[in-house]
Amino acid sequence: MGETDGSPEDHSEIMEATHRALCEHGYASVTMQDIASEYGKSKALLHYHFGTKADLMGAFIDHLHDRFEQELASLEGRPDERLEAFIDRFFVEYDEDDRGELHLALLELRAQAPYDEVYREKLEESDALVRETIVDIVREGIDAGVFRPEVDPEALARLVLASMYGARTRGLTMGDEAYARAVRRDLWEAVIEPRRTESAE
Amino acid sequence: MGETDGSPEDHSEIMEATHRALCEHGYASVTMQDIASEYGKSKALLHYHFGTKADLMGAFIDHLHDRFEQELASLEGRPDERLEAFIDRFFVEYDEDDRGELHLALLELRAQAPYDEVYREKLEESDALVRETIVDIVREGIDAGVFRPEVDPEALARLVLASMYGARTRGLTMGDEAYARAVRRDLWEAVIEPRRTESAE
Repeated sequence: MGETDGSPEDHSEIMEATHRALCEHGYASVTMQDIASEYGKSKALLHYHFGTKADLMGAFIDHLHDRFEQELASLEGRPDERLEAFIDRFFVEYDEDDRGELHLALLELRAQAPYDEVYREKLEESDALVRETIVDIVREGIDAGVFRPEVDPEALARLVLASMYGARTRGLTMGDEAYARAVRRDLWEAVIEPRRTESAE
Repeated sequence: MGETDGSPEDHSEIMEATHRALCEHGYASVTMQDIASEYGKSKALLHYHFGTKADLMGAFIDHLHDRFEQELASLEGRPDERLEAFIDRFFVEYDEDDRGELHLALLELRAQAPYDEVYREKLEESDALVRETIVDIVREGIDAGVFRPEVDPEALARLVLASMYGARTRGLTMGDEAYARAVRRDLWEAVIEPRRTESAE
């Protein structure tokens, strides 16, 4: 499961239909029929390609993971600028192109992870990608002399990720659009700026 | 809705039954029948006292809010010690007395907040209580000379809350028990310790 027997175009269209249906209905409420309607084909065909709703959601997490990797590869600039751009893109400016609704659906799905090993493993991979991206950026920043040499990349990545993940979750669920931006500013003032070298200023 | 017509003992017993049923089944799956079974009385009686599942859940958030206020009042010691005790109690050592399962059920409920104004308002009150508790502790700490006078209590509270909320959410959903403890340590090293005065050491 998790792959269509059809063409890559079928797979891509089903992923886009899943994306739209999730944003419209949320994870808990969305049905295979909702997704089939967005796809414009029968529910039976969807079940034939992907099995259950859980199987399709697993394939959808993989799809997001791939898209996310491509977006990460497109980040440009000095390491400290890339860190800021990355955080803004994924944790602050999530309202652009309905990303907020997608994050909300993924939060519902994450809340099911304790009861679903497949979801847990796939979200673990996704979390690892975010963490490793931040660790790599900080390491490059230390090598390039923009972050202080005594900075622990793993510890810094953990704190950045936990705070911005918490900020996005609370901001989205409470409908408080300014919250993630405020936490980002606090994090920069309290944690990032003191770890930059003078040559980075 | 939200109050039993019966005695305070009825109300308290129903809240405890709701607590046990939520920990057992999670928010999405739990039914009025599950809660009635824990209560040891009929589902009809539960509906008579509390209306719908959403009404009962609203009353349960109020109940947790009251219990939480009582626990906060019992915190003792110097402000910086109280901050540490508060964070450990609510965000790190959540596995004691099944609090982890309760937090998971509340995360599911929070994921529904964008679609439910009552949940959103009640969770907003609960978030405000946590935030104001941290702000008050930091203010007292500045007055008592254990935190530096230039610390912004609102900004510090926001960063502490976002990071520990994110740490608890990720730790619980991914089954990673050590994660919240690691973030707590990172937060103390990077944010709290540099804001304490030498007289607090």
